[in-house]
Amino acid sequence: MALTDAAREPRRLKLTLSYDGTEFHGWQVQPGLPTIQGTVEAVLAEIEKAPVVVAGSGRTDAGVHALAQIAAVTLHNPIPPVNLRRALNRLLPPAIRVTDVCLVPLAFHPRFDAQAKTYQYRIVCSEVCPPFERRYVHHHPYPVDWERAAHAARLLEGENDFAAFAAADDRDALGHSKVRTIFHSRLTQQGERVTYSVRGSGFLKHMVRNIVGTLIEAGRGVLTPEQVRQLVEQPHLRKAGPTAPACGLFLESVEYAVEAVGSVE
Amino acid sequence: MALTDAAREPRRLKLTLSYDGTEFHGWQVQPGLPTIQGTVEAVLAEIEKAPVVVAGSGRTDAGVHALAQIAAVTLHNPIPPVNLRRALNRLLPPAIRVTDVCLVPLAFHPRFDAQAKTYQYRIVCSEVCPPFERRYVHHHPYPVDWERAAHAARLLEGENDFAAFAAADDRDALGHSKVRTIFHSRLTQQGERVTYSVRGSGFLKHMVRNIVGTLIEAGRGVLTPEQVRQLVEQPHLRKAGPTAPACGLFLESVEYAVEAVGSVE
Repeated sequence: MALTDAAREPRRLKLTLSYDGTEFHGWQVQPGLPTIQGTVEAVLAEIEKAPVVVAGSGRTDAGVHALAQIAAVTLHNPIPPVNLRRALNRLLPPAIRVTDVCLVPLAFHPRFDAQAKTYQYRIVCSEVCPPFERRYVHHHPYPVDWERAAHAARLLEGENDFAAFAAADDRDALGHSKVRTIFHSRLTQQGERVTYSVRGSGFLKHMVRNIVGTLIEAGRGVLTPEQVRQLVEQPHLRKAGPTAPACGLFLESVEYAVEAVGSVE
Repeated sequence: MALTDAAREPRRLKLTLSYDGTEFHGWQVQPGLPTIQGTVEAVLAEIEKAPVVVAGSGRTDAGVHALAQIAAVTLHNPIPPVNLRRALNRLLPPAIRVTDVCLVPLAFHPRFDAQAKTYQYRIVCSEVCPPFERRYVHHHPYPVDWERAAHAARLLEGENDFAAFAAADDRDALGHSKVRTIFHSRLTQQGERVTYSVRGSGFLKHMVRNIVGTLIEAGRGVLTPEQVRQLVEQPHLRKAGPTAPACGLFLESVEYAVEAVGSVE
């Protein structure tokens, strides 16, 4: 018994996406520019044979990568999730891969239901940056005391006002709180590789890259630990360090309560 | 006492290059096309303020990468090797890096003096290829018995006639031997990553990629171990498997006798 498209029950599908952000103008749709959201929406519209809107867990900036961005879409097409994953990977450019598709409750929203996000920022501090990694690390071959930077990283853990770490165009916006909880803020060094890992309740625009710029200044001795603390304790006194380049940043994971994603399948 | 350029003694410099071959038409200079050799020669000519010729240990095909290609150049400019390395890395595109520069005897030739070369070929066999690796692996998500392929790999070790593994435009060329010695030919699997590593006295055009295509056929059961042996024992009976894609191939190292590279510095 064939159902017409209109008669099919809508289903909500959660997509896990990994992407190389190098050649995209970020997540969010922008007319005439290649974006992750726009590319995924175009391919899903082909499958659905109707326009679709893909919701993401949050925007990533131009050049920022994702190991596991979470998105959701409502489809009437009854394609099984595993087949949808294969179809998407066949139609999408190789810079965007769908690593998982699953059914979730119709009310699921990847941004509003997110409970925590983890980002990682990769730095290579050797004199020569391996050419195969040049798009995926921040090459910083200058003297930095990474232990000092690691100490500064931990000073940002806890519930703090991150207004000093917001993007310039966002910093003075009124009416919404810049208070976020950072559960984990750690910088580790392994030889010539430095990784900053941060897990928090949410992040402001440019926040992780501004934290990394601040940690590098702390490691260079430009900022004392007291000055780093001051940035969150007296957030309107002065702004954080410079914004580190987009290419080193990866959205690593987004966490949801079991109730939000359900177990529909 | 300043010497004029003409009066300066020529010096021979050995360069170790790492490059991402994705956007180059191979090693060798081709008019109007970006090549590794052409790009390095242009930058060295700026430094030398005169045309220079860069000799390589061998050509790499379009799209093939190098972890440590060896090249040599004769310069009159008295720049110290470490400064030359820095200047080259400042002037070259980030896809080409110079990891080492050292003085060698004037007679050193990276191709004629090479005693052995090692290549590695990287395969990812998971259903989804990580977007960050798409330029640096051959994505082969199809059923292959990799143990069988590993067994076939070892059958190519020793001194053999590799005419069946030569590129089509080279296979029937007369007058030069297709006999090469393979010291080591091993395929290993770690989860969804398969690496083929081959060290030999020298390699014909497309030889490593044709070996990999053959090993995949052996792993698929299309070729028996006897048929693989036959390819080197009766090399004109039939040709090897298909040429595996360039993007999985890396020139890993080139070996020289101590006498060839000397200890001039």
